[in-house]
Amino acid sequence: MRTMETQNRHPKVIILGAGFGGLFAARALRHSPVEVLLIDRNNYHTFTPLLYQVATSALDPSQIAHPIRAIFSDDQNIHCLMGEVTGIDPGGQTVTVEMDGGRRKEAFDYLILATGSTPNYFSQEQYREHTFDLRTLEDAIALRNHILGLFEKAAWMEDSEARRALTTHVVIGGGPTGLETAGALYELYNHVLDREFAGDRRLHTDVYLIEMLPHLLDPYPVRLQQAAREQIESLGVNVILENPVEEITPEEVVLGDGTRIPSRTVIWAAGVKGIPTPGPFTQQADHNHRIPIRRTTQVPEHDHIYAVGDVAHLTNPEGKPYPMMIPVAMQQARLAAANILRDLRGQELREFEYFDKGIMATIGRSRAVAWLYNRIPLRGYIAWLAWLGFHLISLIGFRNKVVVLVNWIWNYLTYDRSVRIILDHRSKKG
Amino acid sequence: MRTMETQNRHPKVIILGAGFGGLFAARALRHSPVEVLLIDRNNYHTFTPLLYQVATSALDPSQIAHPIRAIFSDDQNIHCLMGEVTGIDPGGQTVTVEMDGGRRKEAFDYLILATGSTPNYFSQEQYREHTFDLRTLEDAIALRNHILGLFEKAAWMEDSEARRALTTHVVIGGGPTGLETAGALYELYNHVLDREFAGDRRLHTDVYLIEMLPHLLDPYPVRLQQAAREQIESLGVNVILENPVEEITPEEVVLGDGTRIPSRTVIWAAGVKGIPTPGPFTQQADHNHRIPIRRTTQVPEHDHIYAVGDVAHLTNPEGKPYPMMIPVAMQQARLAAANILRDLRGQELREFEYFDKGIMATIGRSRAVAWLYNRIPLRGYIAWLAWLGFHLISLIGFRNKVVVLVNWIWNYLTYDRSVRIILDHRSKKG
Repeated sequence: MRTMETQNRHPKVIILGAGFGGLFAARALRHSPVEVLLIDRNNYHTFTPLLYQVATSALDPSQIAHPIRAIFSDDQNIHCLMGEVTGIDPGGQTVTVEMDGGRRKEAFDYLILATGSTPNYFSQEQYREHTFDLRTLEDAIALRNHILGLFEKAAWMEDSEARRALTTHVVIGGGPTGLETAGALYELYNHVLDREFAGDRRLHTDVYLIEMLPHLLDPYPVRLQQAAREQIESLGVNVILENPVEEITPEEVVLGDGTRIPSRTVIWAAGVKGIPTPGPFTQQADHNHRIPIRRTTQVPEHDHIYAVGDVAHLTNPEGKPYPMMIPVAMQQARLAAANILRDLRGQELREFEYFDKGIMATIGRSRAVAWLYNRIPLRGYIAWLAWLGFHLISLIGFRNKVVVLVNWIWNYLTYDRSVRIILDHRSKKG
Repeated sequence: MRTMETQNRHPKVIILGAGFGGLFAARALRHSPVEVLLIDRNNYHTFTPLLYQVATSALDPSQIAHPIRAIFSDDQNIHCLMGEVTGIDPGGQTVTVEMDGGRRKEAFDYLILATGSTPNYFSQEQYREHTFDLRTLEDAIALRNHILGLFEKAAWMEDSEARRALTTHVVIGGGPTGLETAGALYELYNHVLDREFAGDRRLHTDVYLIEMLPHLLDPYPVRLQQAAREQIESLGVNVILENPVEEITPEEVVLGDGTRIPSRTVIWAAGVKGIPTPGPFTQQADHNHRIPIRRTTQVPEHDHIYAVGDVAHLTNPEGKPYPMMIPVAMQQARLAAANILRDLRGQELREFEYFDKGIMATIGRSRAVAWLYNRIPLRGYIAWLAWLGFHLISLIGFRNKVVVLVNWIWNYLTYDRSVRIILDHRSKKG
């Protein structure tokens, strides 16, 4: 029988997290003379940019989730372990993993931290209880169940004001996630559910997009910010700018100027912070739990430990931190993997240089903005097509690409959202 | 504003349950001068014959679940209510519904009971705790999570005996559901997971199919029973006949002859019984909670109340009860709807005559048996194609048909099972 211990002739690289950082680090090592152990709490990689489409019933969870073992089924040197890392010993070079079946200690020669990020409530931790996030597949399914359940409830409610609160959605944060979610929520109701709930009681729905800054899509050029605002308002979403959130309760959102929006569905898309890493790195992390790294993506005091993506903090040559975005994570992950191999060969390590392909955000049917290579501005239909094409080719797995494409064409032609089932997970053995 | 009360010029028909019985009763009334209220605890109809494919990662839950409101979106006279019926007052002609948002009382002129069935443990209710069912979408997802989770655990387990128990599946009941589930479980491992778990630790899997009777597929002719057994054994499943279950514990299954099968995954497919109906019908029901009905599908003492499908008990002209099968439910439902309309027109009610199109069961890739019109026996590849075609055209919704077909072709060509994600539903708001 073949076990990792007996065949461990090659140096062992442990990767924590199978998000975009961890996945691309493992991919970069798949044909190299190292044994890789990829640890994640899930058995799948999540294509997070499309979580909002799961939350709004446009895609199935499995269409944006790919089993990790399937990705590496041809790679004998990539091993997968589903569990939660609870300890890192940088000196002893081990990690401790809690898994179903007990605790394991795994030794490493190299370690890559790629644990990603979690919502940032900016010290208002109580908001966590009253808002929905879109960071995990479970978040997206919970939000889908919640929204569809409220519509079923609203359809039979006599009191018109209470009914309206059930069908009012508030999205907090005017970045790409907020914009995309607000647009998709508005379309879910106004193109799909309005037909189906017409028989009982005419429902009215409102979507609010709340942003503290005076503009949406902060890093974009002004004219694209304006284009985004025009497009989302033309869709029907209420955009409220320069108005910070004062309070969120289970019944309403209160803004800085005193505006109160009764709503049972508040989606938090205002920002993220690193997931705290167990062990000594917590002390070194910044206020957003991000670990400062060297330009080689190594952590400060341990040459054998690397950190990439949202959990790593690195500043660009102009002194600004690299944004917490997937392309940064992917490029840092590839560099970390390459540097491990260079280190093994006794070569000098390379330093991180970010190749910025630009940014894009979709707003709804035929509506989007893009800022390609930070030079080429696109808006409207052409930006939307670019967004669709880019996300389609980025999806992991040929089958997922095909099925998502079929779904998108179907949704576009029929204005349908097929996946609107409320799954009650309080099953006895679930 | 339009409410059901103010416009209630037409007689009101309440249908309890949106399974095959309830759905086909509502469909039969969609263009008639009645107002229909369809009550179900879910917002979707489940295509139960394919639940085992969700449990074995071949199909997505939404591919066999269709939102009820979508089915009737063009029908102004069909209203939907998601909730649990807790009371029926046959004299006062009302039902009480518990829903999110409170309790409602709904009056009816006619009532159709179509609440369906639940696993029958034959007085061994403790088995419920130690076995998995395949009656609901939640059941199927729970089983999928469980099986995939055990494989992840087994891959890292040192003790070979304990490891083997984690990958041994026991299916109890040699009817179509048991046969289909056993075959699909075997294929899930031996065509899919074996490749992906080869990297860590070679896993061995066993599937046992246990039947008390001396043959599988009780109502089939002997040569088809034998063909089914040959096919499932040639696949690799261990068939154990004439050996009743003595005991099921969380660790093992004990059979009548003393055989002990260590397993963490026992699937109960040994039979179903009616879901008890609230109100006076519980007393009238037989030991399987089925309500005896007249040949018109009316319940004995109430001319305005009908019962159809698994919850109804009716004997055929030879004195044997009609089987608890979907075609019986669909045909009884159509008759109940027709009889309500005949009653409204003052016409005499019709009596139930079952048109038996036959029975079929699939066993695995290219393996099946069918007994068409109780005359034409099919086996092997041709029976399998017939099974695929029949189930495909029976699926609700054009999109579901297309997506399931694409998935089946994909699975057939690649030996892949794409939907093998473990969804942890202990999400904070899930």
